[in-house]
Amino acid sequence: MSGEAGGTTRRRGRPPRTESGDTRDRILVTAREEFSERGYEKTSVRGIAKAAGVDPALVHHYFGTKEQVFEAAIEVAFAPALRAPEAIGDGPLDEVGERLTRFILGLWENPASRTPLLAIVRSAVNNETAAAVFRRLIAAQVLSRVAAQVGLPDAELRVDLAAAQLVGCAMLRYVIKVEPLASADPEQIVARLAPVVQGHLTGP
Amino acid sequence: MSGEAGGTTRRRGRPPRTESGDTRDRILVTAREEFSERGYEKTSVRGIAKAAGVDPALVHHYFGTKEQVFEAAIEVAFAPALRAPEAIGDGPLDEVGERLTRFILGLWENPASRTPLLAIVRSAVNNETAAAVFRRLIAAQVLSRVAAQVGLPDAELRVDLAAAQLVGCAMLRYVIKVEPLASADPEQIVARLAPVVQGHLTGP
Repeated sequence: MSGEAGGTTRRRGRPPRTESGDTRDRILVTAREEFSERGYEKTSVRGIAKAAGVDPALVHHYFGTKEQVFEAAIEVAFAPALRAPEAIGDGPLDEVGERLTRFILGLWENPASRTPLLAIVRSAVNNETAAAVFRRLIAAQVLSRVAAQVGLPDAELRVDLAAAQLVGCAMLRYVIKVEPLASADPEQIVARLAPVVQGHLTGP
Repeated sequence: MSGEAGGTTRRRGRPPRTESGDTRDRILVTAREEFSERGYEKTSVRGIAKAAGVDPALVHHYFGTKEQVFEAAIEVAFAPALRAPEAIGDGPLDEVGERLTRFILGLWENPASRTPLLAIVRSAVNNETAAAVFRRLIAAQVLSRVAAQVGLPDAELRVDLAAAQLVGCAMLRYVIKVEPLASADPEQIVARLAPVVQGHLTGP
């Protein structure tokens, strides 16, 4: 089901059907904006349909339930993050801490990916259904694959704690905006966090 | 203003006025519950008044605006966390990482303090006003005082990054409930995080 919902790219193989493809994409973009601005709970399929200028039945037709619209919206928005395991796996294991730190900070520094990240964080913090989507998508697809690359017996807990350092940094810097972290030079943050993340993943 | 709003304890110096004190406390407890369950945005002074069985004017009389009710509610709920600088300052500097880690995990492990913590996290993530209250109360009162104890030139950034590790752990373990972190033994977490927090605070 989530495969169907996230299947925009796969449609490229089909004969071009511009109008319906455009409509589907417009609904997805609108859904992402609505979830970003209002969070999961306050967003409705009706509201997304209205903002996208389509009938609510069309939203249901393309995506199914609100939970499935949410999953499709964050799956598209999160495509870069879902490539994390490849991105960080591409290089020596003793530099994985720096690659992972740069990768995650890069996602948050870029306004285009920051908005959907904020939407996911806000929704997952507030709503159990959204948290479950987050766990399924991020935890299962990203964290467990990083853990497989680390390959130690307690790799999964190690990856969770490394992720905790990066998630907490993103929370305080980009969401709560605590100073001086919020205004610190990204390179200064990488210099301090890369060894910590490395230590979590491959240290004693 | 926030001094007035958080002034429950100071009222002890006045002649006992049990009835109004009880009413004020009941409003505070109700406010904390409402903010916990609904978050900052969806909670209203009217809703708090209704749940506490009082007139909305009485809530305004005791606390002022919704922002001030929120600040008073989290200030009371957060009294233990606001004692963090004393708690962790009480011992050798080379064990401050373990003391801070145990202190923060202890707050989250205890259901009585976890509920208001969740309320603050949820509200601060979702609402700029609540985030500002969070920054004022936690960042200024807790983080900057820990930084003063560390005493290094870049102590404030160090404390933010140590806090980021602990905040991120709390997010993934208690809010999003990512496994295996959510079910890990607290002692195992302390063993892994205490050296990291110590390194942030006093390391190279």
